[in-house]
Amino acid sequence: MTSLSHELERLPRGGELSGRERRATANARAAELMCAAEPVLVGVRPALEVVPGMQPETILTSGPDQEWSQYTGGQRAAVVGGAIYESLARDAGEVDAKVSAGEITVAACQRHLCIGSLAGVYTASMPVFVVENATSGNRAFCTLFEGASPYRLNYGVYNESVRENLRFLGDVIAPTLHEAVTATGGIALRPIMRRALHLGDELHSRNTAATLLFTRDLFPSLLDRAASDRLAVQRLLDYLGGGDYFFLRLSMAASKATADAAHGIEGSSVVTAMAFNCREFGIRVSGLGDAWWRGSLPSLSALRLFEGHSPAEVEFMGGESTINETVGLGGFAQAAAFPLQRYQGGSATRMVRANRKMYEITVAEHPEFAIPYLGFRGVPVGIDIERVVSTRIAPVLDIGIAGRNGGQIGAGCFRAPIRCFDEAWSAYRQLYGDEA
Amino acid sequence: MTSLSHELERLPRGGELSGRERRATANARAAELMCAAEPVLVGVRPALEVVPGMQPETILTSGPDQEWSQYTGGQRAAVVGGAIYESLARDAGEVDAKVSAGEITVAACQRHLCIGSLAGVYTASMPVFVVENATSGNRAFCTLFEGASPYRLNYGVYNESVRENLRFLGDVIAPTLHEAVTATGGIALRPIMRRALHLGDELHSRNTAATLLFTRDLFPSLLDRAASDRLAVQRLLDYLGGGDYFFLRLSMAASKATADAAHGIEGSSVVTAMAFNCREFGIRVSGLGDAWWRGSLPSLSALRLFEGHSPAEVEFMGGESTINETVGLGGFAQAAAFPLQRYQGGSATRMVRANRKMYEITVAEHPEFAIPYLGFRGVPVGIDIERVVSTRIAPVLDIGIAGRNGGQIGAGCFRAPIRCFDEAWSAYRQLYGDEA
Repeated sequence: MTSLSHELERLPRGGELSGRERRATANARAAELMCAAEPVLVGVRPALEVVPGMQPETILTSGPDQEWSQYTGGQRAAVVGGAIYESLARDAGEVDAKVSAGEITVAACQRHLCIGSLAGVYTASMPVFVVENATSGNRAFCTLFEGASPYRLNYGVYNESVRENLRFLGDVIAPTLHEAVTATGGIALRPIMRRALHLGDELHSRNTAATLLFTRDLFPSLLDRAASDRLAVQRLLDYLGGGDYFFLRLSMAASKATADAAHGIEGSSVVTAMAFNCREFGIRVSGLGDAWWRGSLPSLSALRLFEGHSPAEVEFMGGESTINETVGLGGFAQAAAFPLQRYQGGSATRMVRANRKMYEITVAEHPEFAIPYLGFRGVPVGIDIERVVSTRIAPVLDIGIAGRNGGQIGAGCFRAPIRCFDEAWSAYRQLYGDEA
Repeated sequence: MTSLSHELERLPRGGELSGRERRATANARAAELMCAAEPVLVGVRPALEVVPGMQPETILTSGPDQEWSQYTGGQRAAVVGGAIYESLARDAGEVDAKVSAGEITVAACQRHLCIGSLAGVYTASMPVFVVENATSGNRAFCTLFEGASPYRLNYGVYNESVRENLRFLGDVIAPTLHEAVTATGGIALRPIMRRALHLGDELHSRNTAATLLFTRDLFPSLLDRAASDRLAVQRLLDYLGGGDYFFLRLSMAASKATADAAHGIEGSSVVTAMAFNCREFGIRVSGLGDAWWRGSLPSLSALRLFEGHSPAEVEFMGGESTINETVGLGGFAQAAAFPLQRYQGGSATRMVRANRKMYEITVAEHPEFAIPYLGFRGVPVGIDIERVVSTRIAPVLDIGIAGRNGGQIGAGCFRAPIRCFDEAWSAYRQLYGDEA
């Protein structure tokens, strides 16, 4: 079903496989699992109810694991805000004390099958999308879009309006959405994502078409629901129409469910996660267990800030939406989304060039997710750390940009640091041998 | 508001205007009116009720006026089908007799502010979109999309299922749509069209995003309507979701309302209509009254036929959807719609090249309708017959293709014949002088 790696196609038949052949086989398998994933939204429930290992006092946040003392700036503020929102503490000091005392646990999203947008804070009562990969049977979760305001908890802001909005998501949006979704028997995300790529989305920094398609899929069951609660349905429609980023959390949950299915394949050098916290960027590799391979924060390649903001304000607060690039979306499908120029800078020519480069560091092309401008070529899937190391081509990442004082101040196109790929590749060779 | 023609910007200030300067001024005015148009859908009513000059025995059809005896093949079959549908005759022989006796009147759509898709047949009882140009106050009309079946009256087919479908449109779809549209106070089409160009539509052969956006705009009033008639709303939703071409008729009515606003400007050499019947292609020019300037049928530039069909089957049955190209959409906005390659052939590179060429024969760029791939350059608006004549660059037309035995058999990209531009230009110089 997927076009396999060129290496694999060139393998000799029969006989003992060389290390390199074993790696190509394992990587083809990883890419195949990514390409075969069928993520389905099956519900919208409170994290405590569905996220494995979630406890009332757990707070999840983005990026490779680190000590509480290492969280700074907006990401720390977001975790503190989450604790106050959840009534676990009244202020930052109490959060510190309770974390030290083991009364609040701060943990990394991806250890709990969750995926964090920017700071990516999850608390027990927050609603999450429940996405099931029908092909491999695994699940992934993501919180809901907080709306079009630049001030959101995931951008490091916690105040009365952020609190009220989070309550509104939990009390009104999530239950109505859950009921509508379950009434349809679950909403298949792959067909929406496939079509959205033909409608100007790359499904990371642009989700306009996918949001529209999702809304249309939901409408029949909303009509039924409206008979008993017209107001709740109207509020949900206003929320779905109030920004074009609603679907991002679904594409992230879908990508997480897709990437996780390809994790843990012996001998595979394919990347299964890219994420950052406030200090570091990190990757996970299919054949290298649960370790994160870490490097410095990504470097800027193009950037567009909202009116009134300057580059000096840019702050990293964590972010795991780069799971989308991990499975061939976002920066790996930029040439499907030329309108992004206006949102994150760059030019059509640069977007096409950057997108084409991604084929040099990946092992397969998706059989269904295609880029019209490239003659419907499938998106590049399965980043091979060896190729990144040997070509020195860094993955391209489309990301939202937070400001030092909280809130979203723009968007941009970044390059992953190559150092973490170098370290992962060293580890890979130590584990699997030099000839791999 | 619109970027005016380069000629106009270079005009000397003060003193008597030369013929060329008068033409540039008139053309700038025509383009300005096109760029300023604000088409709004205000209702969906039977043609008899709203179309000026429509009588119970009138049948409208596409293209420059011609005698009944000159209509052949699918276009003739469609007019006959329309007469039978309207109970004006029982068969082709009776239609002939009644047309001769003056008991059935066959007339050209555009003489009645209507715009015809393919054969473009209008009868008195058929519902039409009523589109008002809020800027200039003029109205235009278009019939409704017959659905995804290749067999439709406008593709020259009339049988029991076509008849039933036309009844369904008149009895179920149109009233429900009319009520929902009037409940919103009218639906502004310009914002939908502006956004759709960023979502992969060129609004002629691709209307996927515009159909989605229109549907979403309609949701709130459909929720209200569902309280009293859930089934009618469900049928309307199925119809809106049953093909991606629903919006084409709205973009055609919008384009007709836009082009007509620019018609009749003394001294303007800007094209205000391009259309064909089964025998000829024709254009109208703003400063040349109501005459059609005629040439041979368009020539093929790219083509994709549905499985099982061959180029020998291609038949021209009329078509006025090229009104969209007249105002800067369709072939003039191809670089906004790379997915079209799959529908009508060609390649992204050819689409970009053809689109760029259209700037050489037009006088303005639209201030809001923009092409993301071209760095958000405005679509080229206002075809100047003089430029077509002097550059020999023919307008590019995206059109659906009918087959000899009726039905749609594919889609393609065509070139308008230059001869009609030559003749119009001769007439222009006769009227306005050689120095124009």
